[in-house]
Amino acid sequence: MKPYAELTKDELEVLIKNLKKEYSEYQALGLSLDMSRGKPCKEQLDLSMGIMDALFSTSDLYCDDGTDCRNYGTLTGIPEAKVLLGDMMENNPDDIIIYGNSSLNVMYDTVSRAYTHGIMGNTPWCKLDRVRFLCPSPGYDRHFAITEYFGIGMIPVGMTPEGPDMEFIEQMVSEHEEIKGIWCVPKYSNPQGYSYSDETVRRFARLKPAAKDFRIFWDNAYGMHHLYDTRQDHLIEILAECKRAGNPDLVYKFASTSKITFPGSGIASLATSPNNMKDIMAQMRIQTIGHDKVNQLRHVRFFEDIHGMVEHMTKHADIIRPKFEMVEEILEQNLGGLGIATWTKPNGGYFIGFDTLPGCAKKVVSRAKKAGVIMTKAGATWPYGKDPWDTNIRIAPTYPSKNDLEIAAKLFTLCVKLVSAEKLYKEMD
Amino acid sequence: MKPYAELTKDELEVLIKNLKKEYSEYQALGLSLDMSRGKPCKEQLDLSMGIMDALFSTSDLYCDDGTDCRNYGTLTGIPEAKVLLGDMMENNPDDIIIYGNSSLNVMYDTVSRAYTHGIMGNTPWCKLDRVRFLCPSPGYDRHFAITEYFGIGMIPVGMTPEGPDMEFIEQMVSEHEEIKGIWCVPKYSNPQGYSYSDETVRRFARLKPAAKDFRIFWDNAYGMHHLYDTRQDHLIEILAECKRAGNPDLVYKFASTSKITFPGSGIASLATSPNNMKDIMAQMRIQTIGHDKVNQLRHVRFFEDIHGMVEHMTKHADIIRPKFEMVEEILEQNLGGLGIATWTKPNGGYFIGFDTLPGCAKKVVSRAKKAGVIMTKAGATWPYGKDPWDTNIRIAPTYPSKNDLEIAAKLFTLCVKLVSAEKLYKEMD
Repeated sequence: MKPYAELTKDELEVLIKNLKKEYSEYQALGLSLDMSRGKPCKEQLDLSMGIMDALFSTSDLYCDDGTDCRNYGTLTGIPEAKVLLGDMMENNPDDIIIYGNSSLNVMYDTVSRAYTHGIMGNTPWCKLDRVRFLCPSPGYDRHFAITEYFGIGMIPVGMTPEGPDMEFIEQMVSEHEEIKGIWCVPKYSNPQGYSYSDETVRRFARLKPAAKDFRIFWDNAYGMHHLYDTRQDHLIEILAECKRAGNPDLVYKFASTSKITFPGSGIASLATSPNNMKDIMAQMRIQTIGHDKVNQLRHVRFFEDIHGMVEHMTKHADIIRPKFEMVEEILEQNLGGLGIATWTKPNGGYFIGFDTLPGCAKKVVSRAKKAGVIMTKAGATWPYGKDPWDTNIRIAPTYPSKNDLEIAAKLFTLCVKLVSAEKLYKEMD
Repeated sequence: MKPYAELTKDELEVLIKNLKKEYSEYQALGLSLDMSRGKPCKEQLDLSMGIMDALFSTSDLYCDDGTDCRNYGTLTGIPEAKVLLGDMMENNPDDIIIYGNSSLNVMYDTVSRAYTHGIMGNTPWCKLDRVRFLCPSPGYDRHFAITEYFGIGMIPVGMTPEGPDMEFIEQMVSEHEEIKGIWCVPKYSNPQGYSYSDETVRRFARLKPAAKDFRIFWDNAYGMHHLYDTRQDHLIEILAECKRAGNPDLVYKFASTSKITFPGSGIASLATSPNNMKDIMAQMRIQTIGHDKVNQLRHVRFFEDIHGMVEHMTKHADIIRPKFEMVEEILEQNLGGLGIATWTKPNGGYFIGFDTLPGCAKKVVSRAKKAGVIMTKAGATWPYGKDPWDTNIRIAPTYPSKNDLEIAAKLFTLCVKLVSAEKLYKEMD
């Protein structure tokens, strides 16, 4: 088929009529499908059921250093878990704190602590007239929700396949002392699946922020989440790069096993410099006596070591790769060459980034919903839920079954075609 | 032996000489014992090992309502866990949020949220010139650490066996709008093991605070932690009482299974009114996607119901009751009738409250330490670590073995005698 832009008004009219007929047929099916959240599917969860057998009533629940994991104490996590997550994060175990079940909660705490007590002796953000964050966009809605909740102004930053617009970032942080942070998902980014290039990471490590308490919030959520054995993105390790650049305290790095074992029952972690660590500890020892060490030990016993985790991740990939490929195929078959949409083909992560013609994303999501297919809310990938061009839609292919996903993806492409044709038709008036 | 106050100077001199000799003999033993923290002992932890077998790889990890506990979601906890902890807390399951592993962390979050965002539309505490809390003292050091960390002024309130000085509290909260909260351990209080009388609870529920955002922080940490089958304290349920008194939003109530299953690997909970709940949820949905549901399910499967938990608690009591009784016996044998100390005989909880003559607590703890017995730091039971009379010492009998505890308690009484005799002798100069 020809690109839609080359169609005459009459051709568009016929097209719209046909697409509407097709759409009614989908509506008649009474679908109820969900492509909205980055949730693992049942088969992925089943992969980790062995972790339920990692510890028994007859198990030794002591750490190598003699700590009884069942009792109080060990604020920053058991040594074995630090080694495992150190290998996972490519960080020194000494630079890691193991938390509870949610890295999102750790990020919330990190912002909240800066707000109430400041970072390393600087003025608490609650005492400042204005605090702002840079937000590479599209990005992760839950990041933006945290900064919005604390009244922190959010400035969108453009994204490219190499990472965010570094020139803009360098200029903004060096000129504005009220810019205190930036949200990053540096590998297999949410939602596009982009990984920051070597140059991008090097420039991040060499930022010269006006604010002494500026920090990079480096959410490496998908560090291990490759889709392919050989087509794997590599990311320069940011803590090491910051250290080499003479900026050791510039970054807070987050990770978790949420999409490795069980979301909600995994372990989360933060890696940072000794100075930041000391600053965090002053709060952490007030906040808790310690996190769930038994669950830390359970993870260590299940994986044994990083190789065990890597092998485990290939099983995840085997389940979700066909889903990504199927969606990509349907997008190509149904939308390829029409000039009405672009989308990403990530090597890992949980999402495909999708862009419609300007002004179409909301309508597409609404159309899909009316036919029983839930997508992530249009706009959600932008600060304040406001996509300035109304183009971006996040596709999350992991959770539905392959059959459901096929129907959902086909309906989705139909909605894209219909909304685009209507837009072009209207513009001819 | 006669009360020390009736001894002549010569008699005291001989006494001190003999006590010092005895003390040197203890020092020669090279002891290393710890009576400082309210930690369960190994035998208590062993009681809960069955929880490790509550879930296997072949188990059904779905809730009755169909929720897959392994995946994201269910922000406020699974229904089964709300029923179990509802029975434990004597609250409606709908009034409960199930959190992660630490009720201390929930209390921290509760203060932190009031500080950053205010309570139910009131000014955030960080924007106020002065915020103060009432602190029944002696009390729990970790409570005081939270308020101190947020710069909240702490006002000590006297404690009696019926609970805190209600007249003082009623007057203070009604007159001072900057008083925003009070820390309470209402049952088997930390450190005295007192339980609030019916009248005390009723007066709490009928407080008329000047501040609309005044809240009672009701840490019911030891609700199930009886030492005896029949000698059990009963506490009026505070949420119900506040509702009856027309003050439904007055209280945040906290609990956990930390000293029921495993400290650090239990589940924590908060019970409060629908209005407070709504206020909390506005933050909670920003902070996390949900807490560890698998661990919630594990607890439910292990106990089955509240009767299972009650039976489990009698096993805890059977282990620690002899320790409490032995310490009480040693205190009575070695200090009874000497007029130099008083102590409590609680029916539950984790502590015995002990008071020396004025100005002796620090010296006693220091003496004990020099002979290898660690007690909770003197002063720790007061805001800012400052016991105005330097009398209070918290005795934690649960963690050491019975043999160790016997030696530690005997040395402790020796230190009390020696320090008291020296004080009286000095006062004769």
